[in-house]
Amino acid sequence: MIAPLIVSCGEPAGIGPDLVLDAATRDFGFSWLAIGNADLLESRAQQLKLNVSVVRVEEAGLVSDSALSARADNTVYVLNQPLAKPCIAGELNADNAGHVLAILKRAHKLCQRGMCSAMVTGPVQKSVIAAAGFNFSGHTEYLAELSGISRPVMMLTTQAPQPLLRVALVTTHLPLSAVPTAITNQSVSEAITILHNDLKRRFGVAQPLIRVCGLNPHAGENGYLGREEIDVITPVIQQLRVEGIKVEGPFPADTLFTPKHLRGADAVLAMYHDQGLSVLKYAGFGNAVNVTLGLDIIRTSVDHGTALDLAGSGQADSGSLVSAMNLAAKMARTNEQTE
Amino acid sequence: MIAPLIVSCGEPAGIGPDLVLDAATRDFGFSWLAIGNADLLESRAQQLKLNVSVVRVEEAGLVSDSALSARADNTVYVLNQPLAKPCIAGELNADNAGHVLAILKRAHKLCQRGMCSAMVTGPVQKSVIAAAGFNFSGHTEYLAELSGISRPVMMLTTQAPQPLLRVALVTTHLPLSAVPTAITNQSVSEAITILHNDLKRRFGVAQPLIRVCGLNPHAGENGYLGREEIDVITPVIQQLRVEGIKVEGPFPADTLFTPKHLRGADAVLAMYHDQGLSVLKYAGFGNAVNVTLGLDIIRTSVDHGTALDLAGSGQADSGSLVSAMNLAAKMARTNEQTE
Repeated sequence: MIAPLIVSCGEPAGIGPDLVLDAATRDFGFSWLAIGNADLLESRAQQLKLNVSVVRVEEAGLVSDSALSARADNTVYVLNQPLAKPCIAGELNADNAGHVLAILKRAHKLCQRGMCSAMVTGPVQKSVIAAAGFNFSGHTEYLAELSGISRPVMMLTTQAPQPLLRVALVTTHLPLSAVPTAITNQSVSEAITILHNDLKRRFGVAQPLIRVCGLNPHAGENGYLGREEIDVITPVIQQLRVEGIKVEGPFPADTLFTPKHLRGADAVLAMYHDQGLSVLKYAGFGNAVNVTLGLDIIRTSVDHGTALDLAGSGQADSGSLVSAMNLAAKMARTNEQTE
Repeated sequence: MIAPLIVSCGEPAGIGPDLVLDAATRDFGFSWLAIGNADLLESRAQQLKLNVSVVRVEEAGLVSDSALSARADNTVYVLNQPLAKPCIAGELNADNAGHVLAILKRAHKLCQRGMCSAMVTGPVQKSVIAAAGFNFSGHTEYLAELSGISRPVMMLTTQAPQPLLRVALVTTHLPLSAVPTAITNQSVSEAITILHNDLKRRFGVAQPLIRVCGLNPHAGENGYLGREEIDVITPVIQQLRVEGIKVEGPFPADTLFTPKHLRGADAVLAMYHDQGLSVLKYAGFGNAVNVTLGLDIIRTSVDHGTALDLAGSGQADSGSLVSAMNLAAKMARTNEQTE
């Protein structure tokens, strides 16, 4: 049996707490607990008129705590983290940015120590964390720093449609003008290698096949529309194939996602954010899951933001959080078997 | 009743002739004729073991030629254009590049003169036309030159799924590194205006609503991930709204294509090729149609290449050509009503 999952509530003024409360009304095949502010969860439950009990748990007792629920028993177990200032749904307060980072740090440590099997993150508001003076460019980068690694790989995956789609990115949150220079031998090579390794150990794919997008339209059309395919991407792919990794490309991104070209691929590697994620989120229809590869822990996340206007309204859709929790548990079980 | 459609066979060594022959076995609610090499169509029909008759027609008789078929009568009517060299399916020959351009020029003129109502193009091979010494960067640009306009707008549309998806592009076949500098007040403004006008006159949308993608991931996240949204795209949108065009954005491209964000939009304007076309072609599932907006004629096209390996094999899928023909006829009828 895997250790419990830990689910971070994220930005307290956003829909993260709402989604965690909603999860407490659902059945899962694994135990989980939340990390966030217990008082806030209680008052948000009242605001939402949700009949959910908030039970405070202690770190020390976690592993042996058989009370942690996997059932739809309307109870949320929570590791409490104080807020700096009281929080009103929908109203950001930079004073609480430290709270948001503290729950991430604690959750990461619990996973590192094996007391939790995986971390699932609710949405945070980057701008308010930056406004508070923290150097924070996103969950992915922050958790990479805590893991002591320099290149995390962001991957999104859909659960619903057949065939399953997994899209990883070489670059993530960069201005488009900075993308071409960020496509280097090292960045492409490391992204493919991390994707290959994590597909094996955390997704249980014995011999993963990766297909790679070009950077330019039509994958550069033999250099006619850009040379990065010829100068960078193709040589990297050839080298990694020699090393035994099953990787193919570069392919034109506009046709790679059609069924004919996807067939047999376990994942697609896109060169940048909008090249891969527009199609992934279209296919995922609000149920995509964001996975960070290359970390020392397992981390999945919702694929949406804090939706401040929906916080406390009862209108937030927990589909992505539920998918992220189910995928994290599946990855944790696979990880146990392959280690 | 609209004048007949004209369908160009495109690269003679590719699947264009195969698709035109296949179309002759289908029912359409309008008359059409092909333009290409009649001998080649005859020999390709033999190679494909297709029982299709090739009938040569003359330009002069076009409008009054009631024999042009709209039915699945296994006859293809063709305006003959000589080849420079005999053509073998799958084998490119730069000597025939002049033939390919000549049929485009003739077809364009017939549409300009109203003898044909719209032009539907089969796939061409850019590289072989360039190798022959012609300055040719694609159908879209070539037809713009013949139309005497400087900025054609490429739009792709799906026929199949609900809701219908239409995606137009500000930039098309540029290396990715050249895209950011091509996003200017003028280019964005002209693309929106052309899209607006053609949705009205050729798609019959009385009050089109256009949603616009940002250039950068998350539409720049308030300047944190690039400034083109703040400096260029937002001011253009504000100006055009003042002028009465219904246009909204810029929106993050990764979520704009989800049903919730698409609702009510008649078209999406993407900033560059892979941002818009990956998701469009995924959604279109091999039946997307390419439409050139802003020309003096109506032009639609298949959304795929010459597929040299499939030419003469009987394996080519005519879905996109059939969709392109049906859409062209629909646009021609709308155009007649709105003019």
